[in-house]
Amino acid sequence: MSGKLPHGYRVLKGQSLRDYLSARRDVRDRLGGRAGDWTLAEVSDGNLNLVHLVAGAGGRVCVKQALPHVRVDESWLLPLDRGANESAYLQAVLPHVGALAPAVYAYDTRQTLIVMEALVPHRVLRQELIDGRRFPGVAAAVAAYVARASFFTSDLYLPLERKFDLLAGFTGNHALKRISAELIFRDPYYDNPRNRWTSPQLDPLVAEIRADPALKLAAARLGARFLADSQALIHGDLHTGSVMVTADDSRVIDPEFAAFGPIGLDLGAFAGNLLLAYFAQPGLGGDRAEYGEWVLGQLAAFWTIFRRDFLALWRAHGQGEAYPRVLFADPASARALEAEQERYVGRLFSDLLGFAAVKIIRRIVGFAHAADFETIADPTARAAVETRALRLAVGLLKTPETVTTVDDLLAAARREQRHV
Amino acid sequence: MSGKLPHGYRVLKGQSLRDYLSARRDVRDRLGGRAGDWTLAEVSDGNLNLVHLVAGAGGRVCVKQALPHVRVDESWLLPLDRGANESAYLQAVLPHVGALAPAVYAYDTRQTLIVMEALVPHRVLRQELIDGRRFPGVAAAVAAYVARASFFTSDLYLPLERKFDLLAGFTGNHALKRISAELIFRDPYYDNPRNRWTSPQLDPLVAEIRADPALKLAAARLGARFLADSQALIHGDLHTGSVMVTADDSRVIDPEFAAFGPIGLDLGAFAGNLLLAYFAQPGLGGDRAEYGEWVLGQLAAFWTIFRRDFLALWRAHGQGEAYPRVLFADPASARALEAEQERYVGRLFSDLLGFAAVKIIRRIVGFAHAADFETIADPTARAAVETRALRLAVGLLKTPETVTTVDDLLAAARREQRHV
Repeated sequence: MSGKLPHGYRVLKGQSLRDYLSARRDVRDRLGGRAGDWTLAEVSDGNLNLVHLVAGAGGRVCVKQALPHVRVDESWLLPLDRGANESAYLQAVLPHVGALAPAVYAYDTRQTLIVMEALVPHRVLRQELIDGRRFPGVAAAVAAYVARASFFTSDLYLPLERKFDLLAGFTGNHALKRISAELIFRDPYYDNPRNRWTSPQLDPLVAEIRADPALKLAAARLGARFLADSQALIHGDLHTGSVMVTADDSRVIDPEFAAFGPIGLDLGAFAGNLLLAYFAQPGLGGDRAEYGEWVLGQLAAFWTIFRRDFLALWRAHGQGEAYPRVLFADPASARALEAEQERYVGRLFSDLLGFAAVKIIRRIVGFAHAADFETIADPTARAAVETRALRLAVGLLKTPETVTTVDDLLAAARREQRHV
Repeated sequence: MSGKLPHGYRVLKGQSLRDYLSARRDVRDRLGGRAGDWTLAEVSDGNLNLVHLVAGAGGRVCVKQALPHVRVDESWLLPLDRGANESAYLQAVLPHVGALAPAVYAYDTRQTLIVMEALVPHRVLRQELIDGRRFPGVAAAVAAYVARASFFTSDLYLPLERKFDLLAGFTGNHALKRISAELIFRDPYYDNPRNRWTSPQLDPLVAEIRADPALKLAAARLGARFLADSQALIHGDLHTGSVMVTADDSRVIDPEFAAFGPIGLDLGAFAGNLLLAYFAQPGLGGDRAEYGEWVLGQLAAFWTIFRRDFLALWRAHGQGEAYPRVLFADPASARALEAEQERYVGRLFSDLLGFAAVKIIRRIVGFAHAADFETIADPTARAAVETRALRLAVGLLKTPETVTTVDDLLAAARREQRHV
């Protein structure tokens, strides 16, 4: 699709955006007052979209438009079907996740544009974790989000007709699927020119990773799952930069990578990025030990609440095509199904560990890095904490059997953090 | 789609079929002579289609048209998208399986019709197995077919763009997907009015199956895999009635159930139906012991050749998105990948066992039975051999760890056959 724009597509900003919004009665009414008085602020943060906050006398909206090229480099083309992908995902999950994501007021396929709730005064979680601020409800909110978004789009809930109709809408978006396949599951494990890392400090560890067949196989197995496991509709990029927070509200945003895939990829993305935040703390100045423990506590809460919510949803709404209810009505079968549900979430925990590990590795030795570590200006200090995160990740991939509970995971993270 | 026919669709038979074929130059040339002299013979055998053999002075063709209702019951409507599904599958796999399937001369989406090679003098394998005839090459041919059709449509071979484009074409065909989900993985395990079995002889065993939580869970896990595992494009109904044979030629036909799914479902369908043929032998009259051993030998050859072919294809053409080649170039990694390939086909063998078991169970206690047993008129004799097949299947689902090689499987089958 690169280079071929939808008929009538144009980048909307300034007056053209103002005209566009004022022509939509629902949006105009929401903003209120005269269109000429609306304030437009471009707040684009990621690489792929133009994002505006628009404020009127009566209210605010956020306008997100997919661009046909990387925002900061017009020569790097990116197909626009990711916009339709994001809209399709939101339409599928918003009925289930409610206020855990921004409300959507309008989709426009031709302009690959979404008009949605303005998240004001929300801040991006990743930066807040760097700044050492606490948001007691964030892990619970993201856990509830993943539990609901994944359960209600899985075969545990859906009849097969609905599941396959939904799946049909997520077989495109190839460019973003390829980004995931390469940047997460392939590039960090061999000498690809896009990779970068804190050099020379991490050179030996990078060489070790690339020379470790068992590690590469573990990553490749997860990559194969990403491609062929249609367990549920997943967000696909659920790191701490895709969560916006206030003291008492948390929202998941930016699902352009949405696809059918293993639920563990969403679990591992968020857990892995909490671990990045945890490991970064000693490099961020001041006494961060207690705050690091708070981050680990959020990780524990994330898993515990996801597990509880997912099991509760299955018990209450397990009417889907998989594990047909009618087979497990008698008491003995009901007990067996409960044991199977425990086994199923146990497998999700294993998946969380694996996907968290590859997400950690890619952010330290791959193409796109995380601000948690990038904020640490001194390369030696940065490499020291990156090494700890990498060691944990390598251990999770190579000896997953040593971590069977979330407490094991916290203990392993603390052990690496103490090692210097 | 039930009740809504494609614009212009009409059932073609007699003169309308003759007119239709003579209007297609490629078909007319192939048949040769004058259209008025062609002989048309309806040879419909399954429940879902109208099949004609058409012969002219110069050659023959087979015409298969999907009907909007079950052939023998016009009130039982069945959507026509299965015709497009079959065409899409054939177009995807024919370049890879060559003469292991009939050549296709024309697809017509509007008439949901395929003009293909007439398989004359081929016979349906299931009946030949009932009649006790030997076809030395059949297992090898079906093994090569499954290896090629599945490998070349898997992530081991395809770039992700091609895989997801292909997947998009197989998200419909809901009616046939539902038939599989219900008749294979659900109905046999509870009191569904569609079920039937040799009664009262099998009543205790049927009750045992329905009351066994571990067995039902095993079947439900396989059902969940059927819905969510997009390992490769599979035939979806590869029993011995979907294979046509002569002394030196074997062809796989009738892929209207084609879908992305676990490769083990095709492996298990063919293996399970060979086991049905094996267990039926003592009830079919005469001394069948030696012939039964020939059938088991074909089962062993089927797995051995599939395994060899699939591994050889992966080694030669493993250029796909999964297990990226570039990660496994050095000698140590290449060795590790070889071990992983063995592990992968080992998992396919486990899958074969599970899917073979549910396929056996459905044909004895479910809705649609197999001629192998139905041919045995005496219910007591039939129940005796059905019991043995059921016992093997239950064992495969409940204690799969006791069967780790195809020799173990043969030994287990012989043990059940000796038990009376």
